Amino acid sequence: MKVLVLNGPNLNLLGKREPEIYGHTTLADIESMVREKAKGMAVEVEFRQSNHEGELVGWVQSARDGFSAVLLNAGAYTHTSVALRDAIAASPVPTIEVHLSNIYAREEFRHKSLIAPVCKGQISGFGAHSYVLGLEAACNLNAR
Amino acid sequence: MKVLVLNGPNLNLLGKREPEIYGHTTLADIESMVREKAKGMAVEVEFRQSNHEGELVGWVQSARDGFSAVLLNAGAYTHTSVALRDAIAASPVPTIEVHLSNIYAREEFRHKSLIAPVCKGQISGFGAHSYVLGLEAACNLNAR
Amino acid sequence: MKVLVLNGPNLNLLGKREPEIYGHTTLADIESMVREKAKGMAVEVEFRQSNHEGELVGWVQSARDGFSAVLLNAGAYTHTSVALRDAIAASPVPTIEVHLSNIYAREEFRHKSLIAPVCKGQISGFGAHSYVLGLEAACNLNAR
Amino acid sequence: MKVLVLNGPNLNLLGKREPEIYGHTTLADIESMVREKAKGMAVEVEFRQSNHEGELVGWVQSARDGFSAVLLNAGAYTHTSVALRDAIAASPVPTIEVHLSNIYAREEFRHKSLIAPVCKGQISGFGAHSYVLGLEAACNLNAR
Amino acid sequence: MKVLVLNGPNLNLLGKREPEIYGHTTLADIESMVREKAKGMAVEVEFRQSNHEGELVGWVQSARDGFSAVLLNAGAYTHTSVALRDAIAASPVPTIEVHLSNIYAREEFRHKSLIAPVCKGQISGFGAHSYVLGLEAACNLNAR
Amino acid sequence: MKVLVLNGPNLNLLGKREPEIYGHTTLADIESMVREKAKGMAVEVEFRQSNHEGELVGWVQSARDGFSAVLLNAGAYTHTSVALRDAIAASPVPTIEVHLSNIYAREEFRHKSLIAPVCKGQISGFGAHSYVLGLEAACNLNAR
Amino acid sequence: MKVLVLNGPNLNLLGKREPEIYGHTTLADIESMVREKAKGMAVEVEFRQSNHEGELVGWVQSARDGFSAVLLNAGAYTHTSVALRDAIAASPVPTIEVHLSNIYAREEFRHKSLIAPVCKGQISGFGAHSYVLGLEAACNLNAR
Amino acid sequence: MKVLVLNGPNLNLLGKREPEIYGHTTLADIESMVREKAKGMAVEVEFRQSNHEGELVGWVQSARDGFSAVLLNAGAYTHTSVALRDAIAASPVPTIEVHLSNIYAREEFRHKSLIAPVCKGQISGFGAHSYVLGLEAACNLNAR
Amino acid sequence: MKVLVLNGPNLNLLGKREPEIYGHTTLADIESMVREKAKGMAVEVEFRQSNHEGELVGWVQSARDGFSAVLLNAGAYTHTSVALRDAIAASPVPTIEVHLSNIYAREEFRHKSLIAPVCKGQISGFGAHSYVLGLEAACNLNAR
Amino acid sequence: MKVLVLNGPNLNLLGKREPEIYGHTTLADIESMVREKAKGMAVEVEFRQSNHEGELVGWVQSARDGFSAVLLNAGAYTHTSVALRDAIAASPVPTIEVHLSNIYAREEFRHKSLIAPVCKGQISGFGAHSYVLGLEAACNLNAR
Amino acid sequence: MKVLVLNGPNLNLLGKREPEIYGHTTLADIESMVREKAKGMAVEVEFRQSNHEGELVGWVQSARDGFSAVLLNAGAYTHTSVALRDAIAASPVPTIEVHLSNIYAREEFRHKSLIAPVCKGQISGFGAHSYVLGLEAACNLNAR
Amino acid sequence: MKVLVLNGPNLNLLGKREPEIYGHTTLADIESMVREKAKGMAVEVEFRQSNHEGELVGWVQSARDGFSAVLLNAGAYTHTSVALRDAIAASPVPTIEVHLSNIYAREEFRHKSLIAPVCKGQISGFGAHSYVLGLEAACNLNAR
Repeated sequence: MKVLVLNGPNLNLLGKREPEIYGHTTLADIESMVREKAKGMAVEVEFRQSNHEGELVGWVQSARDGFSAVLLNAGAYTHTSVALRDAIAASPVPTIEVHLSNIYAREEFRHKSLIAPVCKGQISGFGAHSYVLGLEAACNLNAR
Repeated sequence: MKVLVLNGPNLNLLGKREPEIYGHTTLADIESMVREKAKGMAVEVEFRQSNHEGELVGWVQSARDGFSAVLLNAGAYTHTSVALRDAIAASPVPTIEVHLSNIYAREEFRHKSLIAPVCKGQISGFGAHSYVLGLEAACNLNAR
Repeated sequence: MKVLVLNGPNLNLLGKREPEIYGHTTLADIESMVREKAKGMAVEVEFRQSNHEGELVGWVQSARDGFSAVLLNAGAYTHTSVALRDAIAASPVPTIEVHLSNIYAREEFRHKSLIAPVCKGQISGFGAHSYVLGLEAACNLNAR
Repeated sequence: MKVLVLNGPNLNLLGKREPEIYGHTTLADIESMVREKAKGMAVEVEFRQSNHEGELVGWVQSARDGFSAVLLNAGAYTHTSVALRDAIAASPVPTIEVHLSNIYAREEFRHKSLIAPVCKGQISGFGAHSYVLGLEAACNLNAR
Repeated sequence: MKVLVLNGPNLNLLGKREPEIYGHTTLADIESMVREKAKGMAVEVEFRQSNHEGELVGWVQSARDGFSAVLLNAGAYTHTSVALRDAIAASPVPTIEVHLSNIYAREEFRHKSLIAPVCKGQISGFGAHSYVLGLEAACNLNAR
Repeated sequence: MKVLVLNGPNLNLLGKREPEIYGHTTLADIESMVREKAKGMAVEVEFRQSNHEGELVGWVQSARDGFSAVLLNAGAYTHTSVALRDAIAASPVPTIEVHLSNIYAREEFRHKSLIAPVCKGQISGFGAHSYVLGLEAACNLNAR
Repeated sequence: MKVLVLNGPNLNLLGKREPEIYGHTTLADIESMVREKAKGMAVEVEFRQSNHEGELVGWVQSARDGFSAVLLNAGAYTHTSVALRDAIAASPVPTIEVHLSNIYAREEFRHKSLIAPVCKGQISGFGAHSYVLGLEAACNLNAR
Repeated sequence: MKVLVLNGPNLNLLGKREPEIYGHTTLADIESMVREKAKGMAVEVEFRQSNHEGELVGWVQSARDGFSAVLLNAGAYTHTSVALRDAIAASPVPTIEVHLSNIYAREEFRHKSLIAPVCKGQISGFGAHSYVLGLEAACNLNAR
Repeated sequence: MKVLVLNGPNLNLLGKREPEIYGHTTLADIESMVREKAKGMAVEVEFRQSNHEGELVGWVQSARDGFSAVLLNAGAYTHTSVALRDAIAASPVPTIEVHLSNIYAREEFRHKSLIAPVCKGQISGFGAHSYVLGLEAACNLNAR
Repeated sequence: MKVLVLNGPNLNLLGKREPEIYGHTTLADIESMVREKAKGMAVEVEFRQSNHEGELVGWVQSARDGFSAVLLNAGAYTHTSVALRDAIAASPVPTIEVHLSNIYAREEFRHKSLIAPVCKGQISGFGAHSYVLGLEAACNLNAR
Repeated sequence: MKVLVLNGPNLNLLGKREPEIYGHTTLADIESMVREKAKGMAVEVEFRQSNHEGELVGWVQSARDGFSAVLLNAGAYTHTSVALRDAIAASPVPTIEVHLSNIYAREEFRHKSLIAPVCKGQISGFGAHSYVLGLEAACNLNAR
Repeated sequence: MKVLVLNGPNLNLLGKREPEIYGHTTLADIESMVREKAKGMAVEVEFRQSNHEGELVGWVQSARDGFSAVLLNAGAYTHTSVALRDAIAASPVPTIEVHLSNIYAREEFRHKSLIAPVCKGQISGFGAHSYVLGLEAACNLNAR
């Protein structure tokens, strides 16, 4: 089993950016945590980050070539991208939406996720652990 | 460590009610799954269900007496109860919001959770497995 | 055939409360009218009232044990209870919504019924006679 | 006693149009059912249908000449006609709003009835039986 | 000079309908008042009433054949007819909107006039005298 | 009979300000037209202008001392002043709202008049002639 | 193959009305263009225009008697008629919505078409050529 | 004279819950303050608290048996309960709405009180002293 | 201790204006009641009224020179004045909002107070007694 | 004559993606159909697809170098891209908006096209044939 | 060249009022900074402040007598005054809107400026330096 | 000191695109003006333009490497990009928002800037001079 973990705009700044919201963990730290967990479950993971909406759309499309699930932290595009939504809806691979922070405890415009209705499920608010839980959810989906 | 699992209105019907949305699993089945997982993590769990908003408010209040976390599937009260929200906000015990179905893929009025902004995080859409993930999230919070 | 007639909050005050809107008929008077009508149609009826949302939810759930239809005047909960809506949607027993007054001729916030979309039909504005018409509608549904 | 039964646009198509919503009963079938019921109550009925808003307005106006009540299924004009609303409000004859389908279980724009606030009451969702219940409600109003 | 006075739905009921809003004056009384005023100003008037939106549209269109101005009390169509609005906008003849009652002191949905932006001006709230003022305004426009 | 004509903010600029909307007529020109008309009807008029909301409120209040009617062109305060609205509602003297331009054919925020519901009637869109028609309306009210 | 071309209110004025929006082409000109095109495709067309909503509703209903498609320029009723929408939804004959002007480049209230969701497709903004394209689309639908 | 003081959900937590908003005073402290004040005015008070909407509805209903006024701090139900509103409107006993905090300086959803329109008056923002002022207001009402 | 009592537009009309809402008490009567109460509490009061928004803004600003609290009945400016709100927010002196009538039981546009979020608290609906309660609240604030 | 055909995000998936909405035709199939049609009209076409908003913006900008028209199926960017809108508005080359599906018969958020007001016209709902009609419309524009 | 600098309500409090938003600079300090800058550019400035909407309206009107530009910090009237907007629109003198704080980073109701659409441009968020930049912008406008 | 000047989508078209809004100045002309001004202030500037949202996000992120301020004219992304907003909020380098045209005097959807709340300040409406003023504001920020 192989899981694709996609990270949207500004997540490359993690650990440097607004630490009072996102903490000091970097994206590399998260990747390590996820890889460690994955090893224990005999799952392969691939980690990518992009600031480009179109590139993320392309990655979601190509997930059908070899991946069993997508973990997606779309960052700001969560709230503005109909294109990502369409790519997810068109994908035969289940997508799981994850967020580091509890998006419902932040600004009004972050409460509405355009991609949530076409994802399998959503996990938000547990910091880096949101990714670990998402990985587990992905495996469980597959095991059914 | 002890976790309180609270279930709101109509969840006692699980397995009998609208199976195309919630599946055939009963609340007792979920309780078993959660207990099994908990045993493996050396955690104690207590499971309750009520159709009464006031009773749920009372249970959230009393969680401070001996519990380390609350897993809350507030059902329909998710969308209408400011009283539950106030009880959660007033509680020193972290509350984790769980949903069986992906609430963002259902009717418009279920997209807005009144309790989300005061919960630690939200997990929705993974069926009974949402509870298991919630339990894990709760333990992870405690372990920090 | 057995029909369950449920009455929501403040309906116990009927006849005493704002008579310019609801008239001088009491809930007991309505019960008599319905029983008389029911007798003529060889139908058994059970009459209940509660101010508690959770108790009404429970009664709707338990209607599946022996009742062929539910007549529901949910009073104020008509406009605020997603929990009642869920209970009705989950019930295999058809529910008929009745109102004494024409709710569309009253305050703005009473124009929206949360339960209407999951009820079989709605009868409003004919005073106590709304119940009698509701009973007849229930029997007709069953006769089909 | 004489009751005027008015039917709005597209109801002439009944039985042919979208049978999954309205069933296979034709307007003529409904007229028969109403006439039979009326005979049993010694009531005279007159049945009319029009696709023209202005013609329906005129019929509501002229009901004062000899009719004791109007049963009105305004069809699509229910949601768009202030002119019908004004005609009903100006009429000394009580008007009862009927609908074959449960308008609250359909598209959003059918949830708002412009005429409901000036009608005596509303009956919706019982198919052709909605007319029979409406006739009975009309007679009961008169008998008071 | 010749002025066309058009009256919309239900205005044929004037004097009989809701006298607490419109008074006891009939449409014939208004016609007399307007004719008398017109005589003093050497103006010819033509008076028409219809409950049909399409007929009013046709009359507005045909005003270009011989009329210098249109006085229009569109009644309920004031608030719902884009077709009348288009006809007025397309007409080379200036249209003056008149209302018997002060439409801004009535129900919310009567506060919005769809035709006001394409009329020359609006006079509302002076009872039958609104028509007389409208006639005068029409002549004054012409005299410029 | 004595009529008070009140003019709100910026009307002192008339003739100089945005002539494509208001024309080249000055406030003094309007005063002359109104005075001439008034003489013919044996009515006395008093003309005032202020840019101060509070001063206009005071003038509306004091109208009860000797005036039979108020003609009010509240200018921009038409759309923002609850204070003027309260003063008009509290006054035993009928107030007639006049506007030079057709306020419904201009910017969206000018379509809503806060004072319209408490005025006797409204005349808008006839340029300076709006005042003359308003004066006539005032006299007619008095003559009833 | 036979196509019914229906034209709504004010389209009889075409060529005379607001030429800066609709151009100088008359409805007869459009009919000629469509007939010429139809001849080349061996299609028969029938052209009608009405200012009456009810008449248009009737024509849409009767299209099932011998027509393969309806081209509908509903004019102002596009934005206000639920009755037309219902007639189209009830019709077994595919309806194609056409507009001379680009309705999305005009006033806000013309951006919403009530009939679009029940039509097969929409063509707007190409002047008289919109009809020709619509005819071609109709034939293509049939050819599938 | 006897006054009923009702306290809604979560008020039992007072002094423990979010002290930065409500302070350290407990509900028992408030009861003492009110009793002391009441003694000085020779008034009898009865103090109750419930987390159940239905129980509060019942208490408001029963106030007619022996109480001259109700002081109501409905807590979260202030913003969600139409049932409480109906009970207050139906009650012959005047109800005074009190709040510890200034509800207008808090979250948006707390700015709207469903019960305010049917209460006699509202006092909010003075901490425990809001109750004392409410008691005084109640006595003053009675003394008139 | 010295308290400044400020009264907004139209309050000088009290006793004469819409007595069915405000009663027959004049502003002078209220001043007497407040002075009498103040004497008993050894507090000095200063009473002012203005129809000018700017003058009220200036008075709120100058309260810092010698006053311990401001009682403010801003009348109509309650609902429109951001300037008053800013002055209150900038003032080191606590401001208490008072209203004679229950503003939540009146017209929709009076339900929203722009100044409430920056006042200490609000008292509304107790007639002239609202001022007396406000004075008491002011003293209590000071005594803390 | 040369026409540029631009395709937005996810259109590369055509034929594989949600076939119940878009059918089994691939983008290559559409290109063939358009090329065949173009050959018959002696028109040259260039076909491009991109998932990147910025790339599409650049292509619209560069159309001025040699193209007579742009056919644009902007996919999801139709509903979110002000940048595309600006590029179209700034372009001297006419743009025609095409859609495979009837966007008005789909989710609410797809009903609003940000680019429609600056395009020449819109064709939606005819599947791949929408492109063919668009090409024809483009040529007709040019022929004028 | 002569520039008029106008300051709205509460700006006289600058330096004393909410320093966490506006800083410790007083209006006199700003005047000094602006005068110094003006001297270097050989520009004359006149500085005024008023809490009265009407006075500000008057000053904007009179700017045409000798001033080349107006710098306007309308304070709270920015968000409520249609009168100021009208005065600016009517003025031949260009007006530049300045704000000390970034109004878009503050409360929701401060995000909407009623005067922005009729000003030449807007500068906000640079503290006292906003005025200096505004002065420079004014001179640059004049120099064109 | 070094300032990064970023230009969003379509700004490469400047001078060619809609000159009635933006004038004939090209982006190169603006760069020259800014460079000249910068030289006089001994500031270094770097000028970039992109049509890609993701590229602009990346540039804002990298400003922390050597730049003291960012001048950002985000063009259309001003109104749609949450990703840019997040990048600005996360940046330790102050960002100043500039616009050539007065965005508040244009279409409704351009009145809302998503990035304004996280920028230091905003300058709009002064054509190319907006950049010069922005540069000056940036230096002044740094000098503090």
